[in-house]
Amino acid sequence: MEKFMNLIEIKVKTTQEAVPAVSNILMEQNAQGIQIDDAKNDGNATVITYFPDDVDIKKIKKDVETQTKKLIDFGLNPGNVEVVISDIEEKSWAHNWEDYYHAERITRYLTIVPAWEDYQSKESDQLIIKLDPGMAFGTGTHPTTKMAMQALEMTLRGGEKLFDVGTGSGVLSIAARKLGANQIEAWDNDPIAVEATKKNFALNPGMNNIKVSVNSLLDGINGKADVIVANMLADVLLPLIPQAVEHLDKGGKFITAGIYADKLEIMLKNLKENGFKINQVTEVDNWRSIIATKGE
Amino acid sequence: MEKFMNLIEIKVKTTQEAVPAVSNILMEQNAQGIQIDDAKNDGNATVITYFPDDVDIKKIKKDVETQTKKLIDFGLNPGNVEVVISDIEEKSWAHNWEDYYHAERITRYLTIVPAWEDYQSKESDQLIIKLDPGMAFGTGTHPTTKMAMQALEMTLRGGEKLFDVGTGSGVLSIAARKLGANQIEAWDNDPIAVEATKKNFALNPGMNNIKVSVNSLLDGINGKADVIVANMLADVLLPLIPQAVEHLDKGGKFITAGIYADKLEIMLKNLKENGFKINQVTEVDNWRSIIATKGE
Repeated sequence: MEKFMNLIEIKVKTTQEAVPAVSNILMEQNAQGIQIDDAKNDGNATVITYFPDDVDIKKIKKDVETQTKKLIDFGLNPGNVEVVISDIEEKSWAHNWEDYYHAERITRYLTIVPAWEDYQSKESDQLIIKLDPGMAFGTGTHPTTKMAMQALEMTLRGGEKLFDVGTGSGVLSIAARKLGANQIEAWDNDPIAVEATKKNFALNPGMNNIKVSVNSLLDGINGKADVIVANMLADVLLPLIPQAVEHLDKGGKFITAGIYADKLEIMLKNLKENGFKINQVTEVDNWRSIIATKGE
Repeated sequence: MEKFMNLIEIKVKTTQEAVPAVSNILMEQNAQGIQIDDAKNDGNATVITYFPDDVDIKKIKKDVETQTKKLIDFGLNPGNVEVVISDIEEKSWAHNWEDYYHAERITRYLTIVPAWEDYQSKESDQLIIKLDPGMAFGTGTHPTTKMAMQALEMTLRGGEKLFDVGTGSGVLSIAARKLGANQIEAWDNDPIAVEATKKNFALNPGMNNIKVSVNSLLDGINGKADVIVANMLADVLLPLIPQAVEHLDKGGKFITAGIYADKLEIMLKNLKENGFKINQVTEVDNWRSIIATKGE
């Protein structure tokens, strides 16, 4: 965790329907990762993100408030928007994690174990993913991450070449290697995520020959993969679709997660228009993931 | 295969929207298993089933035609219904299977291998399910079966007690045992399915202590399971829901597949009304599967 200074947390209380737009507004302010709490499923949602403590947080707060309220002009109801700022000390944050974040079996085979926990496998063939979640990259147990891991388990057979776009904490690259993917290359446009991923690779034996570097989507990347996995919001996934066509052979698989419910249709439409066949759609809460195959 | 006489195949050409109703009409005629071909996804579909050659097939054909055309009175468009009858000789049927039915890796771990095929695992930890599909119970590679297997792989952790309702060929019981379920009990209301299941258990080492018998849903069954799996059409799943409540402890998992798209909402509604929390919905083509957890 030594990479992190104190962070400032921003919570935007809004409606479920405004979540993708609010996430977008925060990302345009260079927010470091987005968390969404809509577990109550009552129409309300809170979008949470973090900023380093050297930004002008008052200006950001004001901008976010203004822009979120403007959503009503675009036919979206953001509800009674409330933007709450709080300082997070790294120490208390880390402490918090250690209280709440424990080993979790995601599938019959894949189990995520926090770096600080000593976990004993109950079944000898369980695959253990050691993870220091890092501050803004999630615990690996968010629905979208679980669905992406599930999709990898459905898709991989062993020996594949895999691209992991927007790797975050590196959890999907680690899972893919454990499931037998052979050559893996991972990217994130956030240098801090790349650092976190490198640390997580170091926690897991057998990851040392996975490449990870800073890159925006697949811009300027050469070569093709058998499987491309991307767990990101739909707004970021849409421009990735034509790139995925270019970087997959016919029959190659494209796994996307991080799709908020109301973005499913546009994702499916774009995938089909780009020649993908939809194999499977999975829904957990308000999130969707897709497994698609590149056609002719 | 020696249990089967010559069979008569009935194909009903209709529309996708009429598929559940047509399936129901055929089941009420005591059809032996239903296959649905709507792969073209063009609005048309063919419902295929088999009858033993000692039935009055001309009467059945006429009844099915009449009832299917009546669907229009219920607001369903069955299209230009065509009912086609053909004799199937067991010999040519079995030959046909051997040509078209080969080993298939369903997930990273689960692979279905026809009884007559010699299959070499590529990965040492692959789990092999040997299957003689039997005439009317599917190959184990239908989308609903695949989704049920996937749901088992997501749900099982090892050591569970599992009920398999409407086991068909026994494929899900075999998968569950391979994934670590401890005590398994399976039922089917069709004695021929129960025989087929016993034969398939005999093809797979370690299955000899799984109970399988003739029963309608969970009628008269005592005891509780950690997981109940049922891959059947929604019309049959609906009356199973209250029984599943009774036979699961709080936190127990209920896996359903075989849900045609237009029956998803009524399944979800009934599950919620019976206190289930919906964990995941998966879609493949026009089929849906659900993983749900019993609440308070």
